[in-house]
Amino acid sequence: MTRQLEERRKIDLALRTIRCLILDLCQQYKGGHPGGAMGMTAIGIALWKYCMRYVPAKPDFFNRDRFVLSNGHTCLFQYTFLHLTGYKAMTMDQLKSYHSERTDSLCPGHPEIEIDGVEVTTGPLGQGVANAVGLAMATKHLGAVYNRPGFSLVDNTTWCMIGDACLQEGVALESIQLAGHWRLNNLVIIYDNNQVTCDGSVDICNSEDINAKMRACGWDVIDVEDGCYDVEGITAALIRARSSKERPTFINVRTVIGVGSKFAGDARAHGAAFGEDEVANIKRTLGLNPDEHFAVPDEVYQFFSDAEERGRALEESWNQLLVNYSTAYSEMYEEFRLRIQGKMTEDWTKLIPSKEEFPASPTPSRKSAGLCCNPLASKLRNIMVGTADLTPSVNMAWKGKVDFQHPELRTSCGLNGDYTGRYIHWGIREHAMASISNGLAAFNKGTILPITSSFFMFYIYAAPGIRMGALQGLQQIHIATHDSIGTGEDGPTHQPIALAALYRAMPNILYIRPCDSEETAGAFVAAFQATSTPTIISLSRQNLEQYPEFSSRKGVQRGAYVFIEDDQAQVTLIGVGAEMVFAVRTRQVLLDRFNVKSRVVSFPCQRLFAQQSQEYRKEVLKYRSGIPCVVIEAYAVNGWERYADAGFTMSTFGHSLPGAAAYKYFGFDEHVIAPEVAKLVEEVQRDGIERLRGEFRDLNPVRH
Amino acid sequence: MTRQLEERRKIDLALRTIRCLILDLCQQYKGGHPGGAMGMTAIGIALWKYCMRYVPAKPDFFNRDRFVLSNGHTCLFQYTFLHLTGYKAMTMDQLKSYHSERTDSLCPGHPEIEIDGVEVTTGPLGQGVANAVGLAMATKHLGAVYNRPGFSLVDNTTWCMIGDACLQEGVALESIQLAGHWRLNNLVIIYDNNQVTCDGSVDICNSEDINAKMRACGWDVIDVEDGCYDVEGITAALIRARSSKERPTFINVRTVIGVGSKFAGDARAHGAAFGEDEVANIKRTLGLNPDEHFAVPDEVYQFFSDAEERGRALEESWNQLLVNYSTAYSEMYEEFRLRIQGKMTEDWTKLIPSKEEFPASPTPSRKSAGLCCNPLASKLRNIMVGTADLTPSVNMAWKGKVDFQHPELRTSCGLNGDYTGRYIHWGIREHAMASISNGLAAFNKGTILPITSSFFMFYIYAAPGIRMGALQGLQQIHIATHDSIGTGEDGPTHQPIALAALYRAMPNILYIRPCDSEETAGAFVAAFQATSTPTIISLSRQNLEQYPEFSSRKGVQRGAYVFIEDDQAQVTLIGVGAEMVFAVRTRQVLLDRFNVKSRVVSFPCQRLFAQQSQEYRKEVLKYRSGIPCVVIEAYAVNGWERYADAGFTMSTFGHSLPGAAAYKYFGFDEHVIAPEVAKLVEEVQRDGIERLRGEFRDLNPVRH
Repeated sequence: MTRQLEERRKIDLALRTIRCLILDLCQQYKGGHPGGAMGMTAIGIALWKYCMRYVPAKPDFFNRDRFVLSNGHTCLFQYTFLHLTGYKAMTMDQLKSYHSERTDSLCPGHPEIEIDGVEVTTGPLGQGVANAVGLAMATKHLGAVYNRPGFSLVDNTTWCMIGDACLQEGVALESIQLAGHWRLNNLVIIYDNNQVTCDGSVDICNSEDINAKMRACGWDVIDVEDGCYDVEGITAALIRARSSKERPTFINVRTVIGVGSKFAGDARAHGAAFGEDEVANIKRTLGLNPDEHFAVPDEVYQFFSDAEERGRALEESWNQLLVNYSTAYSEMYEEFRLRIQGKMTEDWTKLIPSKEEFPASPTPSRKSAGLCCNPLASKLRNIMVGTADLTPSVNMAWKGKVDFQHPELRTSCGLNGDYTGRYIHWGIREHAMASISNGLAAFNKGTILPITSSFFMFYIYAAPGIRMGALQGLQQIHIATHDSIGTGEDGPTHQPIALAALYRAMPNILYIRPCDSEETAGAFVAAFQATSTPTIISLSRQNLEQYPEFSSRKGVQRGAYVFIEDDQAQVTLIGVGAEMVFAVRTRQVLLDRFNVKSRVVSFPCQRLFAQQSQEYRKEVLKYRSGIPCVVIEAYAVNGWERYADAGFTMSTFGHSLPGAAAYKYFGFDEHVIAPEVAKLVEEVQRDGIERLRGEFRDLNPVRH
Repeated sequence: MTRQLEERRKIDLALRTIRCLILDLCQQYKGGHPGGAMGMTAIGIALWKYCMRYVPAKPDFFNRDRFVLSNGHTCLFQYTFLHLTGYKAMTMDQLKSYHSERTDSLCPGHPEIEIDGVEVTTGPLGQGVANAVGLAMATKHLGAVYNRPGFSLVDNTTWCMIGDACLQEGVALESIQLAGHWRLNNLVIIYDNNQVTCDGSVDICNSEDINAKMRACGWDVIDVEDGCYDVEGITAALIRARSSKERPTFINVRTVIGVGSKFAGDARAHGAAFGEDEVANIKRTLGLNPDEHFAVPDEVYQFFSDAEERGRALEESWNQLLVNYSTAYSEMYEEFRLRIQGKMTEDWTKLIPSKEEFPASPTPSRKSAGLCCNPLASKLRNIMVGTADLTPSVNMAWKGKVDFQHPELRTSCGLNGDYTGRYIHWGIREHAMASISNGLAAFNKGTILPITSSFFMFYIYAAPGIRMGALQGLQQIHIATHDSIGTGEDGPTHQPIALAALYRAMPNILYIRPCDSEETAGAFVAAFQATSTPTIISLSRQNLEQYPEFSSRKGVQRGAYVFIEDDQAQVTLIGVGAEMVFAVRTRQVLLDRFNVKSRVVSFPCQRLFAQQSQEYRKEVLKYRSGIPCVVIEAYAVNGWERYADAGFTMSTFGHSLPGAAAYKYFGFDEHVIAPEVAKLVEEVQRDGIERLRGEFRDLNPVRH
């Protein structure tokens, strides 16, 4: 009993200390988000002191629990506990760098994946929920594949802290459906239910019965009434959640934002420092010295110091388990070891078909993608392929695939699926697909390579997740089919015009539009090589001519290359992806009808080309030769002006017509393009190439 | 009783006829989406024959019920009923144009807003649910403002047809929360519950209890067991839903995709024609002549022919009501008449502050936006302003604003809100905000002008909705604050780098980055003038220098203009939005340290500039003068290469630092920029301007 009281006293001191530390950290530069972190402090104690399994000295310990702070603006909550539990890099000096001008700060305004103890970069609301689902899936999957009786190698829990906002963002709502469907009983959402957002009380924009809703989505629900102080109650809830047998758990914890301050329960506690006077007042009320700043009594450090020892024990016992496993299951162990190191389970370079293996007849590049990806997915156990409900369209399903599903669903649905499955039915949830995939990829670098698929147009739904993948340097491959207006009858809603401009501008992502099967193979090679970069492979619905004599997978890896050379060329035509056919045919018409000689450059990826040497770039585009360069693509031209003097492109949304007719309707026809190019060549010969500088020409004469 | 039997016989004939018509329409060009439309046919009869209030001869009758086909791929369902109920433009000849090469087809692959009887363009799944919420809000709002006892001028119902997919998309889930919160009892979702999507049974990716979930979100739920044949049962459900007092209604209708075919209940019924043999088989089974195609017996036309008369009566009684209203409430009537005509309730041009009225001291442009917009929003009753939970940050709340809320919430929350309110708390739901706003704007062109607001970065969540607004030509204004890396401490997750490239490339949208208060005023003028185009006004978090001697609202309306002229300039500097300060300061450093003369162009909007005459464009950019042009912006450069020879821009994601420090960290500092520009000028003087063609220069030397 005395011991329990003593523990409570320590908890109380920790609570007071941490809340005031958070206040001080916000006060020093008069900014940041104190209120939520203060309200969640008791939850933090329950997590880091009594529940979570982690190794401060080895932040990347493989079987650690994953903690995701989806309400990332409360980052001081996480930084503080990382500091107290002994993550070496997170010194008090570092804590004090929050909101400072220090460029080496480990305490940015939102948690970032590069920081020890941070699993994923969060901040854009809702993303963390999706990431946590991905992390929990990774555990389920790896556990199903590698665990054996007595060898529970991968069995960690994923804890996801959320605020009111995360329950309003669609990406979280999609992810919650999926976690319930997959019965991820190793996933726990802890809801910091303070009922306050920037605009005030959550009542002003939300009236739902969240517990009933979560139950309807297949989750267990636990309520905690006093989330500000009742560390024991929270701990009990967390422990119960961790041992859930059947379902993910939603812990609804009532807290008070800015608890203990004059802003308690008020939106003003959310995103601003409280002011020196109020900070001093709070310290006085809490029995702390208002003249001391960033004060952490030794007793509080002492209180958390067992984390190190618990971590060491955890790591040691797991290492021993692994040694025993290596004897009992030596082959599996070898593969598991590769996975831990982030290596592929086989040599992928041999799995992509050679040029000769592709059909010579016209082929949709979405089919080419299947020909490339199916052998990879079939053999490489790192790969998890999924689709946003477009299995029949995207050709990503391989023979003998097993679905990722809860094993019991096999009986009820007649599905060939369980947790070992590597084919994911995401449903019509493009955003969750991308954002959960970030979690899969973040579990351990290289252990899982997620491949997503949908129509390219719907990667606009996924854009916030794709961006977070690029920002975090997570390798993934996004198979984006039905690109361009060639997708046809589905009409302007389904025809992407502007979206490529986003992904070509976005840092750290490859957007690749291959023109035939060989280039599609090149796109996969580039995507596999880009181990810290996601790739979008943009593919046609319709048949594409094959150019075995011209196309080159090595060329794709350089972004652009000479497709058809002509030393006497008067103009360079840039062909891209599904519209390469217009470049090649225009070349012929230019020659036949206008006696104009041209060369063709294939340009599947701007980012890869930008990474080449200036010499190579000059050689490909013939910058200095005095001949103009024309890009032909059924997209908005934005971004091409760097490489071309003129474009035959789109300036409006598309139109519902059969693919070939849609192209014709918008002027994509060699007999429309060639005369415009010939006019340009004539002008250049008359007036000189200099004339084109600073006056990019839109050659497409068609206006609707 | 005989009559009832007779009616049932007619219904049966109509069901068989319509299903076979749909099959024939898909079969002729061997494509399209037959299965869903067939499964929904009985719902269509219940809607168009027995429930909906509409005027075929006057498709834009103001108080008509709004019908939204969120599962837009089933468009033949809607087209067929528009044809049968007498929408003149929708002839049989037009129906047959589905999937044809006819460029004047009124039957595109998904419904488009330009077609009589179609309220909104749908296709990207989930969007229609959001649109329907917006349409229902518009009714509630206009009704609350203009209805008077005995004068129910605006009281239509919004019916939204959805499929399984719409219940998986986040945007729909966000919108469902809001509709429940606002208790939109005039909104009915009809769920075509066929439990089949492209990948097969919905079971493979969804296990939730949807009825329980909808109830938890504040909806009434009605079940219909036999949605394929029980027209009476469906009708009863629809009528009950229409008279709901308290809540929106979700009608869960069990149907069978491809009912009556060998593909019934199978994903193969979804997106392909059934083949001639199967179509003939079905006709035989249904007692129709397999050799007849597109056959609609007179009796079926007769069955639907009362729609015309019902429509006429509806219109006449409403017109009479309006006449009486004009006498009883003449002032309100005058305003209402303006609203119907899509005119503003006051002259907006006088409401935007003059240059002199703005503070001369440094001002964040988000504050400038408030100074411009608050008087507009306060006076113009067309405007509904909302925010994705950023009221304290975006400055869009005006004094005396009333919130759009269910009136009863006033008491429970202490809110100043009811349905007359024009300030919308969207919660943290950026996607729903944009997509519901499309519905508000689509209610009747110009009647409501929605203004949304959030951080610019989070307009990446809203992108699918913004795009649909641009595609539909719906005027809206999106107030996007905290743009660029100047937003500071929140870090790379909150600093947009690539997003502007998307909106600059997207057809029919204005992306405007004003540099000070005067330019912000210009952005509002441009946005108000663009009556068929949405506008994003991109604004700073941080203080911006004011340039009353240079900046010009008229200049903004031309996209770009000369800010500081110098006839002897050796280089043109393009300044944009929050980074104008670097252009102006660089100009000074160039002069002082390098003796280089420069001119400054302000370039807030690429789209508006592209619409100017070539002469004007040349004059502004001095294309032919032989001097280089350098753009300075803390975004990816993509799209600027058309106008500039070189850029001082961003090539990576941002960094968490205070705004000024973030700029410095990435080289945005006149003492870093000026030397690079001076080098370029020197090179041009040495080697000639021609050298720059085709070799866009990235001047920023900073690499992290």
